[in-house]
Amino acid sequence: MRALWLEGQRLRLRDDVPEPSLAPGEAVVRVSVAGICNTDLELVSGYYPYTGVPGHEFVGTVEAADGAREWSGRRVVGEINAACRSCATCRAGRPTHCEKRTVLGIAGRDGAFATHLRVPVSNLREVPEGLPDEAAVFAEPLAAALEIQEQVPIASGDRVVVIGPGKLGHLVAQSLAATGCGLLVVGRRPEPLALLAARGIRTALADGLEPRRADVVVECTGNPDGLEIACRAVRPRGTIVLKSTYHGAARVDLAPFVVDEITIVGSRCGPFGPALALLARGTVDPRPLVEARYPLEEAVAAFEHAARPGARKILLECR
Amino acid sequence: MRALWLEGQRLRLRDDVPEPSLAPGEAVVRVSVAGICNTDLELVSGYYPYTGVPGHEFVGTVEAADGAREWSGRRVVGEINAACRSCATCRAGRPTHCEKRTVLGIAGRDGAFATHLRVPVSNLREVPEGLPDEAAVFAEPLAAALEIQEQVPIASGDRVVVIGPGKLGHLVAQSLAATGCGLLVVGRRPEPLALLAARGIRTALADGLEPRRADVVVECTGNPDGLEIACRAVRPRGTIVLKSTYHGAARVDLAPFVVDEITIVGSRCGPFGPALALLARGTVDPRPLVEARYPLEEAVAAFEHAARPGARKILLECR
Repeated sequence: MRALWLEGQRLRLRDDVPEPSLAPGEAVVRVSVAGICNTDLELVSGYYPYTGVPGHEFVGTVEAADGAREWSGRRVVGEINAACRSCATCRAGRPTHCEKRTVLGIAGRDGAFATHLRVPVSNLREVPEGLPDEAAVFAEPLAAALEIQEQVPIASGDRVVVIGPGKLGHLVAQSLAATGCGLLVVGRRPEPLALLAARGIRTALADGLEPRRADVVVECTGNPDGLEIACRAVRPRGTIVLKSTYHGAARVDLAPFVVDEITIVGSRCGPFGPALALLARGTVDPRPLVEARYPLEEAVAAFEHAARPGARKILLECR
Repeated sequence: MRALWLEGQRLRLRDDVPEPSLAPGEAVVRVSVAGICNTDLELVSGYYPYTGVPGHEFVGTVEAADGAREWSGRRVVGEINAACRSCATCRAGRPTHCEKRTVLGIAGRDGAFATHLRVPVSNLREVPEGLPDEAAVFAEPLAAALEIQEQVPIASGDRVVVIGPGKLGHLVAQSLAATGCGLLVVGRRPEPLALLAARGIRTALADGLEPRRADVVVECTGNPDGLEIACRAVRPRGTIVLKSTYHGAARVDLAPFVVDEITIVGSRCGPFGPALALLARGTVDPRPLVEARYPLEEAVAAFEHAARPGARKILLECR
């Protein structure tokens, strides 16, 4: 089959990747649309060692599902962590942290930048009727955005600041806006803020942020500057959510976290059910985030586009 | 009056410090016993700028209390944060984080290494009858240890690891042992661990710690090595409590906190009521921590003793 292949930080299109065959408990999905995420760019930069087909945001149609015929022909998205269901962490109810997990297109398992991929049947989630592919493909990053609300209670009166209106920050902001909290999204450039302002979300440039007032700050930039702004914005006994991975050792002075009793929460993958529901109801509309679409054949060019500073979501049409 | 005086990182005994006079809403306390804390040593090292009488762990007797005669003659300890009760943070119910707070012997207010000190009446806490001074003087650090349980729910089945069996770590361990959690205290040297083992608390040298298994890790060393051990010990979605201040910028790689969804909680001052109750019932017995007692006259020598590596609690007899 045709697939994008990553090896030694080099991407290339291949036509000779074996099409996945049915395996026990797994489904084969024909991919319609897939999205390029910052994690994909980080894989190419070598932050994680990975050889294989990247891609973990996708919509597709089930061609076959082992022991679960009822899935055949359904339009699906998929959770990305494939858990063993038997290790201590799985048994403790944390399968997304399974000690032996493989992760679609990220660790030990081929991903979605291909005509076909293999996904555990238990990871499949049906796309609600009427939800277009170009919105459903955001189910995975929106689920990650919703993980914040699984970890930190957000009350309607809370002052919540989102740092970084990029692809993930935008979805975080839209999902938090739905809670009725006092939301402010902060960035360094006006353009990405304007997208959110158009949806009635309050935005500001980082310089104008009032210090030590936010109950919750969500850091979505993944760079030390963003973290510094987050530290300035949070109130004593407030919470900073780290929603982006930081590479290399970020230099952090921990003393103020102790004195001000700040809580820092790392946040990764989240629940697909609520994400699909918010997309289906139109409460969250990710489509303004789509900057360009490329056919799978032009996947390498699509990655170059996605890596441009300020680029929004790039979709690959794989069918 | 006689008092220990800190100025420009130099300690000296003075006999010419004016005795505190009664002020609105405040009490004058004659100090019996005061304890030297690591924060005091840090003040001398210049980590915080402070000029005046240091000392914030004390037991004493109220000589006079403005508008609250009933306090006269009572044996007391005192909360250390003097709050304005009117700023936004106080009004939000977080007086220990008051934006205009002064802190006994730490910031803007003379402390307890003197014959007398002044404390807001609202900060006074009566010492239960029968609780000796040498135990009651630990109310403040034990309250700080109990702050952990105010911030992080500890269930009886939880695996909790305390890193660093020093003065504060010891109190943290004793207070956590009372919850019935699965407790393990980890250190680098056997001697301080033996003190806890003698109370039936499980201990181990840091090398033998099982990685990625602890639900909660309490870091009490305040040094980067301790933090590194904490990061190794905590399980995915677990919690690290920072119970000691870190000076200078500790170099921390934040990426694993995001991937493993770790929560980090800074923890400072805590509730005196439960601390005095645990001391009165003997559930926590801090007295094995006392290494030496010095009269106030020898306070400078007492500080030198307290600064020796591995030194336990040094008390000053101020009466």
